[in-house]
Amino acid sequence: MSEFDLIDHAFRAKLPFKHALTSIASGDDASVHSVPDGFELVVSSDMSVAGVHWPHDFPLEHAACRAVNAALSDLAAMGAEACWVWVCAALKDGNAAESMGDGIAAAISGSGIELAGGDTVHAADNSLSVTVAGILPRATAMRRGAARDGDDIWLCGDLGLAAHALRQWQQGDRSAQVMKTFGDVQPRLSEGLALRHAGVRCCIDVSDGLLADAAHLAGASKMGMDIELASIPSFSQLERLLGRDDAANLVLAGGEDYALVCTAPATLRDTLSSMAVRIGRCRAGSGVRAMLDGVEIQTRNRGFDHFA
Amino acid sequence: MSEFDLIDHAFRAKLPFKHALTSIASGDDASVHSVPDGFELVVSSDMSVAGVHWPHDFPLEHAACRAVNAALSDLAAMGAEACWVWVCAALKDGNAAESMGDGIAAAISGSGIELAGGDTVHAADNSLSVTVAGILPRATAMRRGAARDGDDIWLCGDLGLAAHALRQWQQGDRSAQVMKTFGDVQPRLSEGLALRHAGVRCCIDVSDGLLADAAHLAGASKMGMDIELASIPSFSQLERLLGRDDAANLVLAGGEDYALVCTAPATLRDTLSSMAVRIGRCRAGSGVRAMLDGVEIQTRNRGFDHFA
Repeated sequence: MSEFDLIDHAFRAKLPFKHALTSIASGDDASVHSVPDGFELVVSSDMSVAGVHWPHDFPLEHAACRAVNAALSDLAAMGAEACWVWVCAALKDGNAAESMGDGIAAAISGSGIELAGGDTVHAADNSLSVTVAGILPRATAMRRGAARDGDDIWLCGDLGLAAHALRQWQQGDRSAQVMKTFGDVQPRLSEGLALRHAGVRCCIDVSDGLLADAAHLAGASKMGMDIELASIPSFSQLERLLGRDDAANLVLAGGEDYALVCTAPATLRDTLSSMAVRIGRCRAGSGVRAMLDGVEIQTRNRGFDHFA
Repeated sequence: MSEFDLIDHAFRAKLPFKHALTSIASGDDASVHSVPDGFELVVSSDMSVAGVHWPHDFPLEHAACRAVNAALSDLAAMGAEACWVWVCAALKDGNAAESMGDGIAAAISGSGIELAGGDTVHAADNSLSVTVAGILPRATAMRRGAARDGDDIWLCGDLGLAAHALRQWQQGDRSAQVMKTFGDVQPRLSEGLALRHAGVRCCIDVSDGLLADAAHLAGASKMGMDIELASIPSFSQLERLLGRDDAANLVLAGGEDYALVCTAPATLRDTLSSMAVRIGRCRAGSGVRAMLDGVEIQTRNRGFDHFA
């Protein structure tokens, strides 16, 4: 099968959806799209590599699905409506192409998101680079640098559960629950839209771990942040299983769930309480402090960093 | 050095340019851009891998520069104005990051194109996935499927010279000429704009080889094409060095120069003759025939295909 036939069979045939804003779809030198008047384009590009972002023995279909969803999570963090995905796939063989295509389809089929193009290359190991693009009304993007003194800090999604499932997988647990918790991560796209509609101006997705990503918010906003572990639902859940220290590390440093963390003034408390959990507060100063029942705790690890 | 410091040092610091249409630049969860009213967005995504798209011993800086320029060539083929690049870099080590950053800078510094984001991952081998985006006036994109019976076929750029230089490199020739011819491929962006302005509606960039890419035009346009080798300047040049058969193969199957091939009615002949070379004609039927002095020739290889 030629490269072109392979792309048709493993990718395009599974993902025929064309977005209403696309005027020239995949198959030409480039794809062409409209951005409606009054809207802006939002773009992010992420790379996921076997052995780094997922264990080599993790099913490639689920790994690819996870990689696409992780990339889409960046659009969720901006409050954008996701429209298009481009995937550059490095593939060990034709089976990898099929699995990668199945995983991309699992991530975006039926979601209103188009596979608008990409590339395939025969390579020594599997990886995929995913570029995602969406739209939002001009000047409404949620940003890292918009936290204000006294803002509440809100969490939308889980923390630590996917990192725990990954550890269980690495220890040999092949249960459906483990596969689902690590493999079926969901980008919080509808939640991102809802937060933006509610008036939230500051948001990030937790890809490197809560402490590391909150530090990105704090640094960009020139603000300090205090986070109360006891208010994070998954902390109690993991504490019962693993004890306090281990649970704290997973919740504070596990970025694999792609939760959203945002800040908002207290005036939004009623609105946000139905869609997120309040986990802390912004303060003058700098740095992120993790507290347990009001007492600051130390952790071993501030997040995931490929080159550290 | 942390991943974030590395990205700042090896990439962002070398490429501070921010495009006038960018409202939120690299450094947030995603970048945000405007597309002017009456314009459309054009996007392409390409992957280049060490050992596949360049020899492992080819300097990474030049390989990365080439990869970015090859991706930009897809925008040239649509007639788009290039605005933004996102690069996902798989890197063996910190030196690779520096070289990759230097290569990206060599490709786009001073060009009006912004490095708008991307990702870095520590991996077993170097590769980069490059997403490029640009703009063009609505419904003016040059397409593969727009060739018409009787259209002239035009070539803008060289064919076979970079493939020949690559072969020389693989045979041990480390001369500056070889390095330059293979490493410093230029995307024909200004030529693409000029062709579109001149009224050309059908274009492709030669990435897989002239025969393979002309077959893409012919197939999408439901048209046959006859190409006359003797009219291609680099054919005579390579024929003197290598003889007829080898020169024909390099010119017909070497995609490494990223020339543009377009078709246009004879009414555009005067306009186009200053910017391109006329190399053939579209005809009713199907398939691409390569002729030498009017006689059809057979070639060993119809282009480059990773999975063939």
